[in-house]
Amino acid sequence: MGRQSFGTSDALSERVREVLKRIKYKVAVVSGKGGVGKSLVSSYTAVALARRGLRVGLLDVDFHGPSSHIFLGLRNARPRATLEWIEPVEGPLGIRVMSVAFLTPEEDTPVIWRGPLKSSAIVELLTKVNWGDLDFMIVDLPPGTGDEALTLAQVVRDVDGSIVVAMPSTVVKSVVSRAINFVKYVGLRPIGLVENMSFFYCPDSGRRYEIFGESAVEELSAKYGIPVIARIPVDPRLSEYVETGRVLILEEPDSPLSRSFEEIASRLLAELERVQSGAGR
Amino acid sequence: MGRQSFGTSDALSERVREVLKRIKYKVAVVSGKGGVGKSLVSSYTAVALARRGLRVGLLDVDFHGPSSHIFLGLRNARPRATLEWIEPVEGPLGIRVMSVAFLTPEEDTPVIWRGPLKSSAIVELLTKVNWGDLDFMIVDLPPGTGDEALTLAQVVRDVDGSIVVAMPSTVVKSVVSRAINFVKYVGLRPIGLVENMSFFYCPDSGRRYEIFGESAVEELSAKYGIPVIARIPVDPRLSEYVETGRVLILEEPDSPLSRSFEEIASRLLAELERVQSGAGR
Repeated sequence: MGRQSFGTSDALSERVREVLKRIKYKVAVVSGKGGVGKSLVSSYTAVALARRGLRVGLLDVDFHGPSSHIFLGLRNARPRATLEWIEPVEGPLGIRVMSVAFLTPEEDTPVIWRGPLKSSAIVELLTKVNWGDLDFMIVDLPPGTGDEALTLAQVVRDVDGSIVVAMPSTVVKSVVSRAINFVKYVGLRPIGLVENMSFFYCPDSGRRYEIFGESAVEELSAKYGIPVIARIPVDPRLSEYVETGRVLILEEPDSPLSRSFEEIASRLLAELERVQSGAGR
Repeated sequence: MGRQSFGTSDALSERVREVLKRIKYKVAVVSGKGGVGKSLVSSYTAVALARRGLRVGLLDVDFHGPSSHIFLGLRNARPRATLEWIEPVEGPLGIRVMSVAFLTPEEDTPVIWRGPLKSSAIVELLTKVNWGDLDFMIVDLPPGTGDEALTLAQVVRDVDGSIVVAMPSTVVKSVVSRAINFVKYVGLRPIGLVENMSFFYCPDSGRRYEIFGESAVEELSAKYGIPVIARIPVDPRLSEYVETGRVLILEEPDSPLSRSFEEIASRLLAELERVQSGAGR
């Protein structure tokens, strides 16, 4: 794997540093493959953090199918640009959102991003967006083991770590292993494992079904020494909330799905504060 | 989008032609994003076709997470190489399987494939593998709108078309639209839409739940004039079958999941025969 050069001039490095020193924690959300719910985890974790009064930013650079903004009801939002800056879109609870989706002309249009373009887009979205002072920035990375994570790790040298999103079933197990090895390799320390679509609560019987089979995350957790910070249930209402631009965890904070995101926020903050207080990694 | 050059010498083109003229139908399986079940659709459609006595090949070039072979119980298989050829792995019902997974050293190792490498890998897997005479070849492409579909369309000029795999929920709708526009753009005619994870049959009550919300495929079907050729239910037993290297649709041919693949095979064959008989596209 050849490390890419970004032509990062000193001025640009300086600019990156300036932006980043105003952001306390930076966490990437990654997955070994798409469709496991990375966008749901990114967006709803941002909301769960903002519910605690934190100032949160969300940067979605999932070039293949950016959708975090859709979970926040920002499907048709467009950022405002000034001469100097691009203003992030303001989402629920004041979350500042920037997405590669905002840069593409039409929703149905396929955008074929080539590698170097992706790298420079990430740098631009970090440096030209007026992020301001933030307690937390969540970066939604493309699934898989592409160059984007490398770029992020190189440009943002002090990323605090990553959340690895998985789903049940054994097909996924090796995919998650690859993702963990990959983030370690590029220097995005895996802070916690989140399993999505872990079960389905039957609305009639209330019984819990492991619709995608047995969980594999406990095994992965033991193997790699990374804690499982949440198992998220499937909620059939989620789709309707998304369709109507509403946010389920704001309107139904006591649902099992919402509670799993409270768990993610707590565990994440506890872990980051533990590391920052010098307890070491 | 720049079209890539493969340095396709006349000798190579000739070789590609030779291999392909022995394969009657060639169909790509695509999706706008990962995790919607492209590998399940690729592998089980191959089995459903082979159950009809057809000679089937499966080529998995999903570089980010090749897993079709896992659904066929070939997790640890490795192809045999002779001086001249690579022999495909023989799967259930004699399906000839080749996968980029067979070329990577270890399952947990992340492989970072760069664009040009991917293109040449596709060409090599087509030309250096002893596919022989086949009635059907299924090609499992990476999700999204990357270069691989372009390569395939360029190298295999007479691909008969593509199956577009979707799942319910509105987040997915625009992703599927992008995928449809993309395959049309690169020349892989969309033959049919397949929706995966459409519903869950509760094992206790037998009731059917749309766990990921309402289907969006009928709307997409109407919009783009592409038929929905199947809606596949979630089957919690699938994971166990995969874990133990067994094939659900062979052992439980009457399950709702299996029946949906019979549907895919029928509809696909009917459509391809219709086109070949000169009824036109």
